[in-house]
Amino acid sequence: MSAGPNPRLVHFSAGLGELPAGDGVWRVREPRDFIGEGLAPADWLGMAPQPVPGAIWQLRGTTSNERYATADEKGRLGAVQEGLGRPAARWATLIPIRKSAAWWALPQDRRRAIFEAQSQHTAIGLRYLPAIARRLHHCRDLAEAEPFDFLTWFEYAPQDEPAFDALLAELRASAEWAFVERECELRVARGDAV
Amino acid sequence: MSAGPNPRLVHFSAGLGELPAGDGVWRVREPRDFIGEGLAPADWLGMAPQPVPGAIWQLRGTTSNERYATADEKGRLGAVQEGLGRPAARWATLIPIRKSAAWWALPQDRRRAIFEAQSQHTAIGLRYLPAIARRLHHCRDLAEAEPFDFLTWFEYAPQDEPAFDALLAELRASAEWAFVERECELRVARGDAV
Repeated sequence: MSAGPNPRLVHFSAGLGELPAGDGVWRVREPRDFIGEGLAPADWLGMAPQPVPGAIWQLRGTTSNERYATADEKGRLGAVQEGLGRPAARWATLIPIRKSAAWWALPQDRRRAIFEAQSQHTAIGLRYLPAIARRLHHCRDLAEAEPFDFLTWFEYAPQDEPAFDALLAELRASAEWAFVERECELRVARGDAV
Repeated sequence: MSAGPNPRLVHFSAGLGELPAGDGVWRVREPRDFIGEGLAPADWLGMAPQPVPGAIWQLRGTTSNERYATADEKGRLGAVQEGLGRPAARWATLIPIRKSAAWWALPQDRRRAIFEAQSQHTAIGLRYLPAIARRLHHCRDLAEAEPFDFLTWFEYAPQDEPAFDALLAELRASAEWAFVERECELRVARGDAV
């Protein structure tokens, strides 16, 4: 009874060799494994509603409603954040994350407390706006068993990568990260970038 | 990169005519349309990890982490609720629900406040435990565009149907239901029931 693809679905498709033609294909600059098993090496990464033909692996997820942000936080984020696709944002990073069963078994208020009161997830992110644009994709409740729970996509200008590194370091030092059991990084540049 | 079906995925498959053999097939007693377009008429309903062959329509969703319950509420629910499959629970009802875009655009604290502070969703449900066993399935973040956001499944003994009707009436009178834009009911009996 479904009516075609979920309009909020995004595919991240990775491949080897020459970049395929088309929008939304990025050149891999640098893969890094942070926690657990890494991603298979790739030369390019497509981010698009559909999979890119010729991919050697793909990940997918849907954007969704906010799970933790309060009205106040949502208002402050909305006032300063910028969208994807800014011409100056020629670099990006995909960070797929899986959290532990212990995290998912926690009630909502405990997860919220770890997310914000203890870890200041939103407060940290706010300090790096508007330089770092971000979009979160959920994969835990897809019909197939997926290797990650979230795919987070960050876009920024090359000169803002030190700020991005600082943002990651702050989040990874937080109490919330004790529940992360797999995390990878794929740093990319726009396919038409020099 | 998926590794087979999500182990939390459940298919609800509806068909016409004789009930197929096998566990998890229920006989439709009564369909009711509550808000919006109804479901196509069916004689049987399968609830299983896989679709039942011969279905004329199917709905699917995944069980997931709790989105609103606090530690205190989760503790109180856990202390009294019973699981699916009790021998006495020979009747059941599937209630698919779609909520409005306005609901999904609300920040988490506003949705939580409408869910519990204004609507007493958990408090109402607690009053009908352990008679009514319940399981919630999420479909909004599947890869396909689904007609409903949730599929709720209730199991109870036939003599508890008046209590189930009272539970529904209380929830439907709550502030939360102003955000429900489609809701159906399919009342069923175990396939081997007289």
